[in-house]
Amino acid sequence: MNPCTSLAAGTVREAALAARSAADRLAATTGAERDAALTAIAARLTARVTDVLAANEKDLTAARADGLPDAVLDRLTLGAEQIEALAAMVRDLADRPDPIGEVVHGSVMPSGLDVRQVRTPIGVVGMIYEGRPNVTVDAGVLCLKSGNAALLRGSSTARHTNTALIEAMREGLADASLPPDALQAVPGTTHASVRELMSLTGLVDVLIPRGGHRLIQTTVRESAVPVIETGVGNCHVYVDEHADVDMALAILLNAKTQRPSVCNAAESLLVHAAVAPAFLPRALAALADRGVTVHGDERVRAHDAAVVPVTDEDWGREYLSLDIAAAVVDSLDAAVNHIRLYGSGHTEAIVTDSQAAARRFVAALDTAVVAVNASTRLADGAELGLGTELGISTQKLHARGPMGLAALTTTKYVLTGDGHIRGASAPPATPGLSCDDLAEPHPGGPGPARGA
Amino acid sequence: MNPCTSLAAGTVREAALAARSAADRLAATTGAERDAALTAIAARLTARVTDVLAANEKDLTAARADGLPDAVLDRLTLGAEQIEALAAMVRDLADRPDPIGEVVHGSVMPSGLDVRQVRTPIGVVGMIYEGRPNVTVDAGVLCLKSGNAALLRGSSTARHTNTALIEAMREGLADASLPPDALQAVPGTTHASVRELMSLTGLVDVLIPRGGHRLIQTTVRESAVPVIETGVGNCHVYVDEHADVDMALAILLNAKTQRPSVCNAAESLLVHAAVAPAFLPRALAALADRGVTVHGDERVRAHDAAVVPVTDEDWGREYLSLDIAAAVVDSLDAAVNHIRLYGSGHTEAIVTDSQAAARRFVAALDTAVVAVNASTRLADGAELGLGTELGISTQKLHARGPMGLAALTTTKYVLTGDGHIRGASAPPATPGLSCDDLAEPHPGGPGPARGA
Repeated sequence: MNPCTSLAAGTVREAALAARSAADRLAATTGAERDAALTAIAARLTARVTDVLAANEKDLTAARADGLPDAVLDRLTLGAEQIEALAAMVRDLADRPDPIGEVVHGSVMPSGLDVRQVRTPIGVVGMIYEGRPNVTVDAGVLCLKSGNAALLRGSSTARHTNTALIEAMREGLADASLPPDALQAVPGTTHASVRELMSLTGLVDVLIPRGGHRLIQTTVRESAVPVIETGVGNCHVYVDEHADVDMALAILLNAKTQRPSVCNAAESLLVHAAVAPAFLPRALAALADRGVTVHGDERVRAHDAAVVPVTDEDWGREYLSLDIAAAVVDSLDAAVNHIRLYGSGHTEAIVTDSQAAARRFVAALDTAVVAVNASTRLADGAELGLGTELGISTQKLHARGPMGLAALTTTKYVLTGDGHIRGASAPPATPGLSCDDLAEPHPGGPGPARGA
Repeated sequence: MNPCTSLAAGTVREAALAARSAADRLAATTGAERDAALTAIAARLTARVTDVLAANEKDLTAARADGLPDAVLDRLTLGAEQIEALAAMVRDLADRPDPIGEVVHGSVMPSGLDVRQVRTPIGVVGMIYEGRPNVTVDAGVLCLKSGNAALLRGSSTARHTNTALIEAMREGLADASLPPDALQAVPGTTHASVRELMSLTGLVDVLIPRGGHRLIQTTVRESAVPVIETGVGNCHVYVDEHADVDMALAILLNAKTQRPSVCNAAESLLVHAAVAPAFLPRALAALADRGVTVHGDERVRAHDAAVVPVTDEDWGREYLSLDIAAAVVDSLDAAVNHIRLYGSGHTEAIVTDSQAAARRFVAALDTAVVAVNASTRLADGAELGLGTELGISTQKLHARGPMGLAALTTTKYVLTGDGHIRGASAPPATPGLSCDDLAEPHPGGPGPARGA
């Protein structure tokens, strides 16, 4: 093992300081330098398959000894072909366009002042996740591609596997003469170390929790560092009065059954009363054929005795399984109100041939994605041409909906003049707020981002 | 007083629920409807000048009785001409373009699926501020223009004034047949009510604290609702070895003295040693002429005995007064390192005729704004053509640098197809993370945004 790439011990704050310093270095790299590092990382992953598999076996042995359920063992298991697939993904990422340096907005003011708003890395990204160990590589290389340093905090169940993967990536960074500290594990395995990570405003620029609802909500609630929230998908398919019944059936089956375990799968079906007699019998039969349990209200159950009675909880559930809640509604507005009450703001679909109904549905719902005559499953970065997907944001700030690499960037305004100054004779107050509302001067000392 | 526009009593949660309902209504309005409400608000502000002045006098009397300092009384005082200026600002805002509905990104996928990313209101915005009562109107109408409902929490010192201003705005909303609850005061005057506001994730979409460093940091630390952070400006002017000395002098004086009390005023001066003999004697004399106290290191003090010795605290201070910290540095890298250590990530200026130096300075600094041969004072929404300014963000997510109305918006993806579904034969895994990492299904019940 190369001592210069071995994992940092020490405190979370020390790791974050090292990451900050690596981020300063990354901000000065070209896209070609970062892509070279990705290529080197892919090579190291391939070269270290045996080590990673051995580490994975250690984690599996411990997990079996702890009596963890099969689903956990399944998520934890990494095979040689999966490591090769990860390496291929990293090589593919190296070939994609650089998100950094794009001029998001540019203009020349009447004074001749040149204004450019330029895309730049965020800086230090903290990832907290409980999923499969491949997230370690996914998250690490997406951060690197976009010029960010990453602090990776995976599940302690996968700690040997994650350590081996991070080690391989750090070796790749060193091969490409970039600082290995751009990719680090968060030291410590207790919740206290996560709490410390969540407190490091200024040193850590953003946290991205990936995993179950509880992990994400805990992070949102406890973190002082800004959080990008990926959320629950209780996605609805609404079959309107003016729906093409064949189209509605195809969309419903795709949305519910093509991959039931993901957040953009449909969890609820709402059917307009006028179309229910034509649609529901066929839909219920087709769902039953595919092994889907329908949890329906009385009006749905009237069409099929096999439908299970729905409970109040069902309306808000993200099943992630072959289950769906279903109701008959009397109007588009009733569908909208149901979705407003129970929806999670992820993706909502309407099937209709009515322009008026489509416009009303799109305008009325406050959600990341609305699909008109299309499956909820299309709410996906790759499907929408955003390239590699970081996840689907259900929050409203910074990034909403499927997130591409741009979600890992911020911008910087660059003003260029020939000695431009602000006119002493300009109007004294710009309409709108300004920072002269500040009630107290800021005390001195090093800035929060660089101190300590 | 019109009973239907009187201020909501009740709890913070009830106010937020009413705001959410008003936000749903606002999301369905046209820009013309919102502009009509702004015009009506302007008329009501003019009509109620006497009431507002009487309320202001009540606050002033109480503040004097409490022995509050003159600076506070000064900020609190509202004159008839200021109320008229507010009304004029509101009319001006009504004439500006609508930020909502812009197609931020649009494309047609190879499958024919139509993808549009459309600008929409955020929803419910909470403003916490301790400044002048005019912020009540500024914040309220900026939110309304961008289709958001606002929960306004001003200083308790200004509570009668704020109540009168909000009352006038709510009457304007009612005049235009929009829900008065789109603009509300946050009930309660204790910190407990602010804490409740900060806990209402799902009901309140974003908090914007405006005021002193402590208020902002407390909000960032304690809030579960996402926060847009406007921050401290410890802005530097770096006079490079290759600077035009006359230009450097003009920029320094403008940045320091044109309006010292605001966040984009310069607080620190760094001078390259090679240009110090030509620049510093003239700069120190000119600063002294304008009443500026220079806190300098030894090499600065060598040029002028009147320079006060600088302390470690001075390097990080936001004076907001006629003071400036000053140092001589031996290289551009030394200047960059100083700014990395003490800067607040707001605005940093370089004066140089060297392209290489300018490129290095721009690339090396992780800051919202970099000015090359231009004054830090130009880091301002109106100066950069962004229209009405909401403030200057020093955080990196969502909005960074001067914020126009767009900072009060989010986006929604609208997918339109002809029965488009996700291909069952598509590659199974998109490179990158996806939500099948979810470890646990989400339990049921109404969604967080609409429950309670």
